[in-house]
Amino acid sequence: MASLRVLDTLFYPKSVSIVGASANPSGWGGSNFLTDLLKRGYQGNVYPVNPKATVISGLKCYPDVKSLPEIPDLVIIAIPAPGVPQVLRDCVTRGVKNVHIFSSGFSETGEEEGRKLDAEITDIISNSDLRVVGPNCMGIWVPGSKLTYWGDEPKGIGSLALISQSGGHGEFLTLYAQQLGIYFSKVISFGNARGLQASDFLEYFAADPETKMIACYFEGMKQGGKVTKMIASINRAKPVFVWKSGLTPSGARAVSSHTGSLAGEEKIWKAFYAQTGAVPVNSLEEIADMALAFQHLKHAGGRRVLLLGGGGGNSVALADICSREGLDVPRLTENTRLELNKFIRLAGNSVRNPVDAWSAQDTPDLFHKTLELTVNDPNIDAVIIDRLVWHTPDDRLKFDQVNDYLIDFVKHNHSQKPIVISLSGVNSSLASVTTKTELLQKFTRAGIAAYASTINAARALSKFIAYHEFLAR
Amino acid sequence: MASLRVLDTLFYPKSVSIVGASANPSGWGGSNFLTDLLKRGYQGNVYPVNPKATVISGLKCYPDVKSLPEIPDLVIIAIPAPGVPQVLRDCVTRGVKNVHIFSSGFSETGEEEGRKLDAEITDIISNSDLRVVGPNCMGIWVPGSKLTYWGDEPKGIGSLALISQSGGHGEFLTLYAQQLGIYFSKVISFGNARGLQASDFLEYFAADPETKMIACYFEGMKQGGKVTKMIASINRAKPVFVWKSGLTPSGARAVSSHTGSLAGEEKIWKAFYAQTGAVPVNSLEEIADMALAFQHLKHAGGRRVLLLGGGGGNSVALADICSREGLDVPRLTENTRLELNKFIRLAGNSVRNPVDAWSAQDTPDLFHKTLELTVNDPNIDAVIIDRLVWHTPDDRLKFDQVNDYLIDFVKHNHSQKPIVISLSGVNSSLASVTTKTELLQKFTRAGIAAYASTINAARALSKFIAYHEFLAR
Repeated sequence: MASLRVLDTLFYPKSVSIVGASANPSGWGGSNFLTDLLKRGYQGNVYPVNPKATVISGLKCYPDVKSLPEIPDLVIIAIPAPGVPQVLRDCVTRGVKNVHIFSSGFSETGEEEGRKLDAEITDIISNSDLRVVGPNCMGIWVPGSKLTYWGDEPKGIGSLALISQSGGHGEFLTLYAQQLGIYFSKVISFGNARGLQASDFLEYFAADPETKMIACYFEGMKQGGKVTKMIASINRAKPVFVWKSGLTPSGARAVSSHTGSLAGEEKIWKAFYAQTGAVPVNSLEEIADMALAFQHLKHAGGRRVLLLGGGGGNSVALADICSREGLDVPRLTENTRLELNKFIRLAGNSVRNPVDAWSAQDTPDLFHKTLELTVNDPNIDAVIIDRLVWHTPDDRLKFDQVNDYLIDFVKHNHSQKPIVISLSGVNSSLASVTTKTELLQKFTRAGIAAYASTINAARALSKFIAYHEFLAR
Repeated sequence: MASLRVLDTLFYPKSVSIVGASANPSGWGGSNFLTDLLKRGYQGNVYPVNPKATVISGLKCYPDVKSLPEIPDLVIIAIPAPGVPQVLRDCVTRGVKNVHIFSSGFSETGEEEGRKLDAEITDIISNSDLRVVGPNCMGIWVPGSKLTYWGDEPKGIGSLALISQSGGHGEFLTLYAQQLGIYFSKVISFGNARGLQASDFLEYFAADPETKMIACYFEGMKQGGKVTKMIASINRAKPVFVWKSGLTPSGARAVSSHTGSLAGEEKIWKAFYAQTGAVPVNSLEEIADMALAFQHLKHAGGRRVLLLGGGGGNSVALADICSREGLDVPRLTENTRLELNKFIRLAGNSVRNPVDAWSAQDTPDLFHKTLELTVNDPNIDAVIIDRLVWHTPDDRLKFDQVNDYLIDFVKHNHSQKPIVISLSGVNSSLASVTTKTELLQKFTRAGIAAYASTINAARALSKFIAYHEFLAR
């Protein structure tokens, strides 16, 4: 297994060679990696390799890896699959340690030729010291070393690491999460995983001081027992979110076509989650949801939730959602109810929990009194404040005042109870969609665990609580 | 039970009296109903009732129902709950037939006073010929008679009827659905249901020529056996979508606070769905989703779905989603695969199903060839075309060309296979959220069953197929 120092040369290479860079690029490949590295301001030496060119993007070009003036810390291979074995052999000869194979066209094609090539490179890799990411993947993206895989990734450095067999997932997630104030320490797309495995990356991230949370997207899994043990250990210090895809019959077939992986059985993965306490997730959105929870919530206690919202039918829906996500919405204490009734009239409202009171939602000082009373109710362990955003606000000033007050309240929450915000409601117009998206960005960028729907909020809160329940066992 | 002709005077009243209209309105109540009726251009006679005023909004005001110059077809009661029994008695005396009680403050408050008032009005109603909607509800909204309950409802008339114990749900749903080209024949908010029951409205809608689909939101249910039988019968001619809330412990408590209803047991409702074949839904969004399916899809066959999208990891996710929604994503025939391979290269793509080929998604003529080949594959019964919208399009012209072509293809689909469009992808910016929302509106308004996510698309398609499977049994 690769140690932390060894993989450092992969994540922070002093020199990179790109095999398959082209002076006149058509299509998508090595030239993109070259352009993106330069665009991002990568500071190390960059060596294009192409036997048909002498200069590419102003850089001297070399005919092959063997003729490079130094041993590059990282070689990116981006040529058609049939040429990959020879480049790998050259890398072995030259003493290269880290290789990323971007090229696809191996066993994931399901064709005889691809399978043969796959066997050939697997043989070269396993009989060498090469540390290979891929093939059939976008490779690695490290904001701290300006190592890029797409060219328009977020520039910020954060504390979430992503280990993904899909490169697209990495791109989609990082750009989506950025809007919510979630940034990444490192992103790995490792495709068919013929060299470095999930276990190698997990070991690195366990020790990586930049990384505080780890998200994994797995299509297949090698060394399952080892990975399970590692995640069980790492998860206690750094929460690990695991999305295992391909657990349905149709998904398993898709996995085979994508990375040539064997998807595995659902019961094995159930045991994995039970044993490790890793947070199960099922989408990119949910990875971001969990990162928001772990980034912003400090404490977790019981499952008795206060639901503070507006609308009668809407409140019932919110309560059903919470129940289905394993949360309880108990009655508030008699004392809280009587205090609330002093300023929220009985008819047309409910102060029992869910607390359904438009008047409180619309008026900053009533909202303040309602929050203080209900959040501190002894029947309550956690809080979901629902902002029903379905039209553009009638009174924008008041709307913003309530939201600003809410941010202030949650940021200075001394109750030791996790507080999340949900933005429920089906939108009535494009303008209200915009309002909701802007409000979600406002809350999350202010450091609040806020969610686009109550389902997202309740699910994230429930899994956050489950994580702490697991640790407390 | 009320017959079609009898309820016609409720839905198309020639005169309306509003008890609780006020010349100088503070808060929300009778004056809103009056204002909204006038604003909407209601053509019948309108009689405000208020003992403290002589003229309201330019209309002569009457001290009570007994002194009105004619028997109004509909009386709307919007005064505090304690005064409601006397108005009901006046209605009986005057010979009024249809009453909507907007007022709340009855048994849903959980307080002794509210329960007493509830018993009192229930007694009056059951010993009279009054047809009462409510109390604690927004009443009825009929675009065809300009009868309004909110004042800013969509103006269009459509074929979906809504029977809802929540008025908010009616408002949210109608404005949301309008964006997707779904309009309503009639909307009923009937709150605590102390008079007219779901069965009365169902009977009306079964015969109503305007109504082609019926959506129900139930918190509680009286006459369950009768309603089950009615829906089992109606559903064969007009699909009935039923959202039963309060089936979780927390939801049941919320139901009791909202409309004072008994939520009932989950197993009873499972039997209800099994017996009636009604389409189970769980949110307003899902009601709109099902309306889109039934409004735009003509045929339903088997469950073998073609998934046409882009992105490797994304395709796996789409396949898992379909499987979880009860759909199968089988391999395409060898012939289709070979034909696709002639213009979609093997490396980095998959033509097996999911068909993952960026090149085809981005190029109108390749997209056309891909669609023609795959939709007509004999292994396929239904189609989900996924447009992965996660950023703003790099080439807007091409993007629009592909979308326009897609609309044309789906509208002229002669395959007898249902085709739906999903817009997957987590968004990278507010601009991409806007793009996605606009695209969803464009597709749906063009008469296509299009959905904001693949989960929504797969769920709606699966339930649409299930409905037809039930009918074919």
